[in-house]
Amino acid sequence: MVSDVPSDSAADAPPSASRWTARESEFLAVTLRLLQEHGYDRLTLEAVATEAKASKATMYRRWPSKAELVIAAFIEGTRVSAIAPRTGSLRADLLEIGAQVCEQADEHAATMRAVLTEMSRIPELSAAMQDEFVHQRKSLMTQVLTEAVNRGDIDAAVISDEIWDLLPGYLVFRCVMPGRPPGPETVRLLVDEVLMPSLTRDMPSD
Amino acid sequence: MVSDVPSDSAADAPPSASRWTARESEFLAVTLRLLQEHGYDRLTLEAVATEAKASKATMYRRWPSKAELVIAAFIEGTRVSAIAPRTGSLRADLLEIGAQVCEQADEHAATMRAVLTEMSRIPELSAAMQDEFVHQRKSLMTQVLTEAVNRGDIDAAVISDEIWDLLPGYLVFRCVMPGRPPGPETVRLLVDEVLMPSLTRDMPSD
Repeated sequence: MVSDVPSDSAADAPPSASRWTARESEFLAVTLRLLQEHGYDRLTLEAVATEAKASKATMYRRWPSKAELVIAAFIEGTRVSAIAPRTGSLRADLLEIGAQVCEQADEHAATMRAVLTEMSRIPELSAAMQDEFVHQRKSLMTQVLTEAVNRGDIDAAVISDEIWDLLPGYLVFRCVMPGRPPGPETVRLLVDEVLMPSLTRDMPSD
Repeated sequence: MVSDVPSDSAADAPPSASRWTARESEFLAVTLRLLQEHGYDRLTLEAVATEAKASKATMYRRWPSKAELVIAAFIEGTRVSAIAPRTGSLRADLLEIGAQVCEQADEHAATMRAVLTEMSRIPELSAAMQDEFVHQRKSLMTQVLTEAVNRGDIDAAVISDEIWDLLPGYLVFRCVMPGRPPGPETVRLLVDEVLMPSLTRDMPSD
């Protein structure tokens, strides 16, 4: 997927590289699959080791706790989509990012609920999530907005550091709330009726 | 708190009434306090019963599980603020609602994380949350927007049923994500730079 994304600048940030070996990535993929099948509570490191035909010691050496394994799996499983869509249109870029968030959040809703609870208990996990997930998403959003500024579509002053994650944050909220998963219409309304009017609003000229 | 809120219409919805007796409300208040002190995992119905000087049987009769007790306590603890601010200005109403959500979400962040996880496991809890919490909040938001339409501040066509909870939803997301609690500036930016430009945008005239 990564190699299919066109890149039009030599100064681009490198496509987010995995920090895991192929074998480790395989453990993480197995973890994600078992999470989706059985949920966080019923997942054990033993089950992942068995399924991945590895020793428990190997697993424990890399991920001393279930929470660490699950956060690593979640970050790795959502890594490839942390690349700016580059459609050439701000609206289309935002729609694409929204669709990606919905797809991931739908796939990983139960994992995300568990991850939220675990993160609040274990500060190191919260730090890992910040460094490897949140910063990556923020840089993606900044890139999309900067390109729109460079095209002259929006004013640089409309970009907010404080509420940069309104789009993904609200969609994640909708995914973790039972019964109201967001759909394409949610994303369209959010982009057309909220984000675009906000980003293209008149700014004071002084 | 309820009696302080001015009401200027006889047709108002009644201020959201508690469905609990005074004694039951006391149990729920104790539950909320213990949740804030010790967190969801360490809370037991026994501890609540002891603290409230009630028998365990009394507690279990009303709330057969910890999850049911916690959701009832959460809904009851946030009930009084489900009243429209009625400042006479849409912007001020939205700022007030945002401030209320932040205050509650800050107070109950750990409870909300636990409630999200439990709701996804137990459909009845999810239904209770929908009926007693979500619908109440939605009617509050609808009331604030309808008043703005009646004052001629906004066009009725800008009101979205699909993303009515963007303001509270994003703020709750920020509260349950570790390390980024929303503050007054978050609410101000959300209202002034996102919601107001969206709600006052030009609508097609046909």
